[in-house]
Amino acid sequence: MRVYNFAAGPSTLPLEVLQKAKDEFLDFSGTGMSVTEISHRDKAYMAIVEEAEKLVRELLNVPDDYCVIFVQGGASTQFAAIPLNLMHNKKADYIVTGNFAKKAWQEGQLYGEAVKIGDSSDKVYTYIPDVDKLNYTEGADYVHITSNNTIFGSRYSKFPKCKAPLVADMSSEIFSREVDVKKFGVIYAGAQKNLAPAGVTIVIAKRDLIQDPLPICPTMLRWKVQDENGSLYNTPPAFSIYMANLVLRNLKEKGGVKAMQDINEHKAKLLYDFIDNSKLYKNNVLPEFRSIMNVPFVTGSDELDAKFVAEAKKVGLVSLKGHRLVGGMRASIYNAMPVEGVKALIEFMKKFETENK
Amino acid sequence: MRVYNFAAGPSTLPLEVLQKAKDEFLDFSGTGMSVTEISHRDKAYMAIVEEAEKLVRELLNVPDDYCVIFVQGGASTQFAAIPLNLMHNKKADYIVTGNFAKKAWQEGQLYGEAVKIGDSSDKVYTYIPDVDKLNYTEGADYVHITSNNTIFGSRYSKFPKCKAPLVADMSSEIFSREVDVKKFGVIYAGAQKNLAPAGVTIVIAKRDLIQDPLPICPTMLRWKVQDENGSLYNTPPAFSIYMANLVLRNLKEKGGVKAMQDINEHKAKLLYDFIDNSKLYKNNVLPEFRSIMNVPFVTGSDELDAKFVAEAKKVGLVSLKGHRLVGGMRASIYNAMPVEGVKALIEFMKKFETENK
Repeated sequence: MRVYNFAAGPSTLPLEVLQKAKDEFLDFSGTGMSVTEISHRDKAYMAIVEEAEKLVRELLNVPDDYCVIFVQGGASTQFAAIPLNLMHNKKADYIVTGNFAKKAWQEGQLYGEAVKIGDSSDKVYTYIPDVDKLNYTEGADYVHITSNNTIFGSRYSKFPKCKAPLVADMSSEIFSREVDVKKFGVIYAGAQKNLAPAGVTIVIAKRDLIQDPLPICPTMLRWKVQDENGSLYNTPPAFSIYMANLVLRNLKEKGGVKAMQDINEHKAKLLYDFIDNSKLYKNNVLPEFRSIMNVPFVTGSDELDAKFVAEAKKVGLVSLKGHRLVGGMRASIYNAMPVEGVKALIEFMKKFETENK
Repeated sequence: MRVYNFAAGPSTLPLEVLQKAKDEFLDFSGTGMSVTEISHRDKAYMAIVEEAEKLVRELLNVPDDYCVIFVQGGASTQFAAIPLNLMHNKKADYIVTGNFAKKAWQEGQLYGEAVKIGDSSDKVYTYIPDVDKLNYTEGADYVHITSNNTIFGSRYSKFPKCKAPLVADMSSEIFSREVDVKKFGVIYAGAQKNLAPAGVTIVIAKRDLIQDPLPICPTMLRWKVQDENGSLYNTPPAFSIYMANLVLRNLKEKGGVKAMQDINEHKAKLLYDFIDNSKLYKNNVLPEFRSIMNVPFVTGSDELDAKFVAEAKKVGLVSLKGHRLVGGMRASIYNAMPVEGVKALIEFMKKFETENK
């Protein structure tokens, strides 16, 4: 039986994509070999990378003066790549609104002055600081944000308007809502939430910003090099890019990012409305900043939380345990989570509440 | 029809491994989800990473004071990670015996004095310099070699005995012949030849060497951090590690590295003997240094080479085109290439020679 998988990443993928990948797993596109075996210099494979790039450009309306590259190492590797590509004045601003935002800020400190201009740790990251009132550093190389906080379930409702290029980690929400790419200098995202199996990271960067990486930047972390080589400077994470391409095709068939955003907002509203009206469950994030991708909630009792997670698993609602930094539960309801999955979760929550009054 | 795929990497994988991955692609180990969807913190997935590490240790007889980690970015990323983890005296030796050896050497120059103590470019990398007669640098942090040259088809027949730790890129031959791990400081290998689909890189390193990475080393490139976190510091390339584990199990079932070495030597001998006895084909590598993994050969005519590659493809012998730096043909006959594939290639070569006298 297929379960509803609420994991924060790696996470659920569209069933029709998985089925297609399975069907052609031993013979990709009539080549007589698996897509996991084909040379990355084979035309049949290079066509995948080209199509995936084209679909990203189309679905996010990426301007022509931005590169779209597929790299390895996850967003965590980009935490270093960002200063190594951009930190010429050795000074950058960071807004720390969660665990990964903090890690990005700490990594920035390896290469220069990483100024924490905003911080919502005082209220366990349940809000986003007012970006209009922050003290942006004059001459900063960039301003870094994490647009959606996977662990704490908050997200930016509006983005900073700053002089320095805005760099955004969108790992846990890319392709889930419309964004205006040209307002960003760099957008990056690990694939394992809304795009593909783990192993590939997408970087969208304004080309004029990335022409002069620091001399100590590893060649493989130079966005310029990856861009000049069409993401094929070395052997790419071939299977993950292939899967990303299938997911992107699937997203286009479903109507694109705006259509997906409507569905995501509907799913999130169902869940938040239920939580807000229940007596047992609570979500602590300020409504304005609530993520439509990651929905943490607690019962107030660790014991009851554990029981919830265990019993939910028995009925095929899995990976609902919250991150250890927050506790309780977390339902990640990414693009590939069908509305039926959210409804099934709500039904279970109702039943559990009745049984545990 | 399944082809024989002679690609240099990504490359052919054991058919029984592909079949198993296909069979359980929609439901991994009774979890009700694909292995591409499961959380890397799920016990069922963590068991894979643990088993893969254990199998590497067992198959290569890795001493306990070495780490075995799975990282991202390919060998090309390790070209930077090596100096960033090891180059405390800002001085290291490199033996340049091919294209990737050269790239590793060039990357080393970003971080210190990368001394080229050996170079076989004078004869198009068709031999390995005598490692007993090289002028090793006093106080070097390490000596870097590429143990098998994928493009030029040469390999070390003996390894340097040097005071500094020996660091070896074994991407295109790991698990194909026995090596004495304890004679190396670091062994690393991109997976996409003998281990798994592209996207994961294995690093085996003596722990006492890796405790003090340079301050500018990105966290994700710090071997120590990956070791301390059991390769799960961040989201790993989950599917590639899963496939690596299946390949490692398969290798163990087939008798391990020594059994595989015997088969590989047999396959290589069949092909080299045929080439050496033919009037049409030529391999230019000195016999002592001939790779048992990558076998380049030429007819002496670019036109005939192109015809060979095109006609071979028609009968299901694919990706035989040589690298652009060498031209001609190259048959990569990794662990997963069955002896039948090599025999089929030889039969085709015979027929082609007769038809093109």
